[in-house]
Amino acid sequence: MKLLEDMIREKGEVYPGNILKVDSFLNHMVDVSLMDKMGEEFYERYKDAGITKILTIEASGIAIASFVAKRFEVPMLFAKKTKSLNIGDDVYTSRVSSYTHGTDYDITVSRKYLDSSDTVLLIDDFLALGNAMKGLIEICDQARARVAGIGICIEKGFQPGGADLRMMGIDVMSLAIIERMGDDGTIEFQRQED
Amino acid sequence: MKLLEDMIREKGEVYPGNILKVDSFLNHMVDVSLMDKMGEEFYERYKDAGITKILTIEASGIAIASFVAKRFEVPMLFAKKTKSLNIGDDVYTSRVSSYTHGTDYDITVSRKYLDSSDTVLLIDDFLALGNAMKGLIEICDQARARVAGIGICIEKGFQPGGADLRMMGIDVMSLAIIERMGDDGTIEFQRQED
Repeated sequence: MKLLEDMIREKGEVYPGNILKVDSFLNHMVDVSLMDKMGEEFYERYKDAGITKILTIEASGIAIASFVAKRFEVPMLFAKKTKSLNIGDDVYTSRVSSYTHGTDYDITVSRKYLDSSDTVLLIDDFLALGNAMKGLIEICDQARARVAGIGICIEKGFQPGGADLRMMGIDVMSLAIIERMGDDGTIEFQRQED
Repeated sequence: MKLLEDMIREKGEVYPGNILKVDSFLNHMVDVSLMDKMGEEFYERYKDAGITKILTIEASGIAIASFVAKRFEVPMLFAKKTKSLNIGDDVYTSRVSSYTHGTDYDITVSRKYLDSSDTVLLIDDFLALGNAMKGLIEICDQARARVAGIGICIEKGFQPGGADLRMMGIDVMSLAIIERMGDDGTIEFQRQED
């Protein structure tokens, strides 16, 4: 998506260790007009897939998932992060390893809001190792819900998450795939088909 | 807002200790159509206030704040919760006491995204003790940003947050104000002017 790539080039900040900060428009301050346009892109791809729920993880996935859900006119459901071991029977749960924070956490979704009648589009702002998405897929498996695909704003193509998920047979749509980031702040994108 | 009150009556779950769970449409699964209509209500009230930013706190404020920001066509900014003591100079910060979780946490907003040129509308899903909102006001004070008002989905009118904030001279607009919750699950709303 050219608009997103341009914004990453213009406003993204590259730091050593392949860190990309986009908190001026994506995950601290949020450009809601961009979010709405990204929502439209995901809708165009998945509008005939029978989507019944949009599923994401708190916190930074919520804004984009909200705009995607508005396009589909379906509920947005966000998995909660918890460190508590005291999780009841009324939730699906999965453990996620966080590379960013160097810790593990559990994500939970209430059983009341996801079941075998659902066809789910998973949405997140970033895809790197893919652990959060694998956690959401595990939760959908527990619920026997169908995963129609994964919609990602920014994929770090040089990290293995995207490849792992595609190997699992999951349809992954990333609006911008970063191929390489230079220490001089340059960013190269993977050329996309459309 | 009648639509919201009806939904609270129909789908809200009352538990002992004045706990109201609305996670089927507000803060776990999210009814984005309702969010959009609530956004319109806040817009109608504050459209001439010169709002430049919508400010909320992660995580459950993000969805409603996104839709409000879309109406105003301004950025949505969400304060991050952190327990780290290792906060740099590049952020405004305030300490918030959480009644729900029984702990304190710090909230931070990057100095880059809020300053004296801003007129801010604070948005959150719930108002009870008002500690989160007081934290955001402190952050706006640090930034010398003007607070035009606070927009809340559900206010617990029997808890002191709303009164405290109004005593501070802040304009608080709550779309539904709960006056009383009975152990039998009944919910009484405060009659609103409009």
